[in-house]
Amino acid sequence: MPNGGVDAKRAVEELKELAELTGGKDDGGSRRVAWTDEWVKAREWLEGKLSEIENVEVERDEAGNLWATLRGASEKAVLLGGHIDSVPNGGWLDGCLNTIAAMETIRALSGRDLPVTVRLVDWADEEGARFGRSLLGSSACANALDPEEVRGLTDKDGISLPDALREHSVDLDRMNESHKQLENAAAYLELHIEQGPVLERMNLPLGVVLGTFGVERHVVKFIGQHAHSGSTPMDVRRDAFIAAARSAIAFRDDAAARDDVRATTGFVNVSPAIVTAFNGVCEMSLDQRALDADVLADMLRGAKENGELISDEENVSVEWEKVWEIEPRPFDEKLVELADEAISEVAGTSHRLPSGPLHDAAEMAPLMPTVMLFVKSLRGLSHTKEEDTPEKDIEASVAAFHRLAEKTVGWMSGRA
Amino acid sequence: MPNGGVDAKRAVEELKELAELTGGKDDGGSRRVAWTDEWVKAREWLEGKLSEIENVEVERDEAGNLWATLRGASEKAVLLGGHIDSVPNGGWLDGCLNTIAAMETIRALSGRDLPVTVRLVDWADEEGARFGRSLLGSSACANALDPEEVRGLTDKDGISLPDALREHSVDLDRMNESHKQLENAAAYLELHIEQGPVLERMNLPLGVVLGTFGVERHVVKFIGQHAHSGSTPMDVRRDAFIAAARSAIAFRDDAAARDDVRATTGFVNVSPAIVTAFNGVCEMSLDQRALDADVLADMLRGAKENGELISDEENVSVEWEKVWEIEPRPFDEKLVELADEAISEVAGTSHRLPSGPLHDAAEMAPLMPTVMLFVKSLRGLSHTKEEDTPEKDIEASVAAFHRLAEKTVGWMSGRA
Repeated sequence: MPNGGVDAKRAVEELKELAELTGGKDDGGSRRVAWTDEWVKAREWLEGKLSEIENVEVERDEAGNLWATLRGASEKAVLLGGHIDSVPNGGWLDGCLNTIAAMETIRALSGRDLPVTVRLVDWADEEGARFGRSLLGSSACANALDPEEVRGLTDKDGISLPDALREHSVDLDRMNESHKQLENAAAYLELHIEQGPVLERMNLPLGVVLGTFGVERHVVKFIGQHAHSGSTPMDVRRDAFIAAARSAIAFRDDAAARDDVRATTGFVNVSPAIVTAFNGVCEMSLDQRALDADVLADMLRGAKENGELISDEENVSVEWEKVWEIEPRPFDEKLVELADEAISEVAGTSHRLPSGPLHDAAEMAPLMPTVMLFVKSLRGLSHTKEEDTPEKDIEASVAAFHRLAEKTVGWMSGRA
Repeated sequence: MPNGGVDAKRAVEELKELAELTGGKDDGGSRRVAWTDEWVKAREWLEGKLSEIENVEVERDEAGNLWATLRGASEKAVLLGGHIDSVPNGGWLDGCLNTIAAMETIRALSGRDLPVTVRLVDWADEEGARFGRSLLGSSACANALDPEEVRGLTDKDGISLPDALREHSVDLDRMNESHKQLENAAAYLELHIEQGPVLERMNLPLGVVLGTFGVERHVVKFIGQHAHSGSTPMDVRRDAFIAAARSAIAFRDDAAARDDVRATTGFVNVSPAIVTAFNGVCEMSLDQRALDADVLADMLRGAKENGELISDEENVSVEWEKVWEIEPRPFDEKLVELADEAISEVAGTSHRLPSGPLHDAAEMAPLMPTVMLFVKSLRGLSHTKEEDTPEKDIEASVAAFHRLAEKTVGWMSGRA
């Protein structure tokens, strides 16, 4: 077998097989939305493949996560994570690449006497596509899911989350009991497509993820007074949109001047929004991200100061409402080093970068040493059937993930 | 009678009487939308009052405009214009102040041997509130209405403009025949509330209007490429909203640096307008106004240049679509002088200012010497029941309008 025991070409073939079964690049995109029949079909396909691997035990936990365990001399376990669920009309790689690379890694390790245990986990409902709550299975497993926060969620047909879970033999109030799966967990590894343009622009197939960004998300509301576009001289206007526009530029410029952070204006709603008046109200979203908590706090402080200064100059008022926040989840330094080695051995060059999107790894990072690998995304696209990665890069990612698993097993056995 | 023959207090009482009959400051605002029963009621009230004035002949023309004629030695006529129609829930002064001040002026002149003819015209449907086409009656009278442009208009209940006109004995295809009313017209005078904050801020009751602004109205569309707020570094973004925001500020700053012009961003639509992505498309309206055609053209040229420069810097493209334009309609220099005199005699100080909103006077200005007077609006408000002007200022406006009519009659008789 090429690549030290792992058959990366088989992983690519299995990705295509899954796309054939439940959608992917063609046929409108993938259809593996969690808690639906096609997701069940995908998991039955996965479970069938896992059951064929020598010495592997397959089970489901109380949160609906699927585990495949290859026991070693010690119960101490290295976890390999992925999610086979997708968004509607999703790509052929987002989530299932991770699961299939983990399966191929388990296959490569299965004939050996392992010093520690290796476990694949296929998380249930990473995307939150049906009920709007992402990382559902992994947050339950991390004992970080509050059932009350999600009990009232319904899908677009009015079906409640608890009812949908019950149809898949999951009891919302017992989901956090899945936490006992982590009893002996000692490290968590995950591979994912980048979903961004960084690696492609650097012409690199692979990168090591330094952690997931912390996020500060606010709605910023500017309040002036609308009036007629003809009768109101420029110098007496209290134009809320102009204040918002100046602020959005200030937020953007601040982020652009810092090292590898983000600031994004998303929705923008003005009122009265007619051609014959300037606007008395403008409400817009600001999403700020950074890997360092102090940097993130400084960005938010700066944005509020800028918003105040600009609002004073434009004679409007400004209000901030926090709508979401999550702290940065930096990954483990030792595992980042091992991942760098694995990538360099496979691809010659590695690169370290933060993750913009969240991943199941963010739920594991506070609990155990964690790291992720990114493989190049073409044009940075994901969550669409246009999502793609060259096959040779997919193969390189499977090979590097396998090497990282081997290195982590070695590191763990030294500590076991 | 005070004020040289005009009874300005009676005009105020009649404004209140009309408000009592068809809404005004109280009771939800005025309800005199053209081509409705309450507008008919208001006009019957007006017609009744006009018919009581000695030597006055009242008639309707083919466009539904109401004329009251006080014949003088010459057929050459000075026109005093107004409109009794209002927007829904409108103010107690917009439009009807003009009509009632003209009626009071006709009353003051009616006992005299006049060298020229004086005519009041109450224009039909200045506001365009029901069918969206403003200046309907005055544009027909100016022979500037294209029936095909308005034939397809419907109100919110689906009733067509031609059907509604027919119910009021107006045939769309014959409206322009009303143009013969202007055969002997030699000057046009109109009084209006300012609908802006300029006079109030200068603590002046009255001003002379220099003309109505020319308008260039465009939809400006910026096209980049949306992507995820977390995964896309700042330096590779093609953020259409940021380009639009920078452009809106450039348009505003350019107008603020010029003398008495306007530039207004009205609606702003971004896409995909979600918190987790920057925007790939932003479409916004730009409304530019100036009294000088060359200045207006220069503003538009500058805006397009700025939009291109900014779009290049932000790596997006930009498209301009013209949605409306009208050339500036400067008023007559001699009448501006006479108006200045009239105001100075009544109020001590005059001030010259352009009109942001359009008025029926804009339709008359290309056809004959035209001028308007503005009276102070409190807080610049109009098209709302909060619209107001102190009664002493309303009285001053009626007195000044009467003096302007006297001066214009004198000027005309010199030319008759």
